[in-house]
Amino acid sequence: MNEAVVLTPERILEATEDVLRRFGLSKATVVDVARALDVSHGSVYRHFPSKASLRDAVAKRWLDRANEPLCKIAAGSGPAPERLEKWLRTAFSIKQKKVCDDPEMFATYLALAQDAREVVEAYKDKQVDLIAKILSDGVAQGVFEIDNVKATARAVFDATVRYHHPAHAEEWAKPECPSRIDALIALLLRGVRVCKP
Amino acid sequence: MNEAVVLTPERILEATEDVLRRFGLSKATVVDVARALDVSHGSVYRHFPSKASLRDAVAKRWLDRANEPLCKIAAGSGPAPERLEKWLRTAFSIKQKKVCDDPEMFATYLALAQDAREVVEAYKDKQVDLIAKILSDGVAQGVFEIDNVKATARAVFDATVRYHHPAHAEEWAKPECPSRIDALIALLLRGVRVCKP
Repeated sequence: MNEAVVLTPERILEATEDVLRRFGLSKATVVDVARALDVSHGSVYRHFPSKASLRDAVAKRWLDRANEPLCKIAAGSGPAPERLEKWLRTAFSIKQKKVCDDPEMFATYLALAQDAREVVEAYKDKQVDLIAKILSDGVAQGVFEIDNVKATARAVFDATVRYHHPAHAEEWAKPECPSRIDALIALLLRGVRVCKP
Repeated sequence: MNEAVVLTPERILEATEDVLRRFGLSKATVVDVARALDVSHGSVYRHFPSKASLRDAVAKRWLDRANEPLCKIAAGSGPAPERLEKWLRTAFSIKQKKVCDDPEMFATYLALAQDAREVVEAYKDKQVDLIAKILSDGVAQGVFEIDNVKATARAVFDATVRYHHPAHAEEWAKPECPSRIDALIALLLRGVRVCKP
């Protein structure tokens, strides 16, 4: 490969994903990544000065990609209650799909995320910001009544942890999950709606 | 020890807890329990015919004991919103206290619970029943408006999993937790209150 032309960070991250898929996290090395790209490992280190920085970048890329549909829903228009419900159901199904479609790769990314704490925290904050965007829209539309949008967005995120946090993944396939998710979303939507007691 | 007089299931369970505390789950045996009680291991097996049945009984005893304050709150009287909040905060603090006060024993019980799935499921169902009791009281008091009390109780339980499920234990000591718990409880209470939109 002609390094001068094509060795972008993006190419390195793609190759790293391939290497992780083939060898698993414990066996994959920066040398494997360089070999897959037909470059020296020094060339990889020029873009990612440490194994940790490469690991964080792979984790970030994975999470950002998973988040794309959620960013679209938050940025969209339309009635906020429907969008909040759609956002939550999409967030759950993205995670569930990842676990079901490629459990080995999911396990690899989980292990990766364990060490990329800052990346994961930033990703969670981003999720909360997306929920906050929809809640703000709902307040502007006059359908939500919320004192503190940021804190409530965090509460919605926390309240749904059972269906998006990988620690609970083995319960997602249970037959009672869909109706429990329905009840949870209904409860949260009632919690933010305009209400004159 | 005179077995005929004092070898009750309760005595055996107490001794088993002591043995678990001293040796840890992986090393503790029924023979250790019998030795601690100064009886033959056959005497223990007369009450608990398998190691699994003894393990389940120890897990159940531990969970039942932890649940006592929650049963009292649910059985009590007074305004349902205050009781629901008190119930949730007590549930969180029971778990948090267990983790902080005796992390080794907590880890032992967690490992025990991993294998005592039915006992744990029954315990969770019991928790949901306690929440349902408070929700029903709130409906009777005219302060809660709930279509399906059982499903909503399960939703409240699910919504608070971050603060009572041991998978999240390492986040409970974080400084932002108290305000996040406040926001979550406020959201859930708004979700069940009487509301005329």
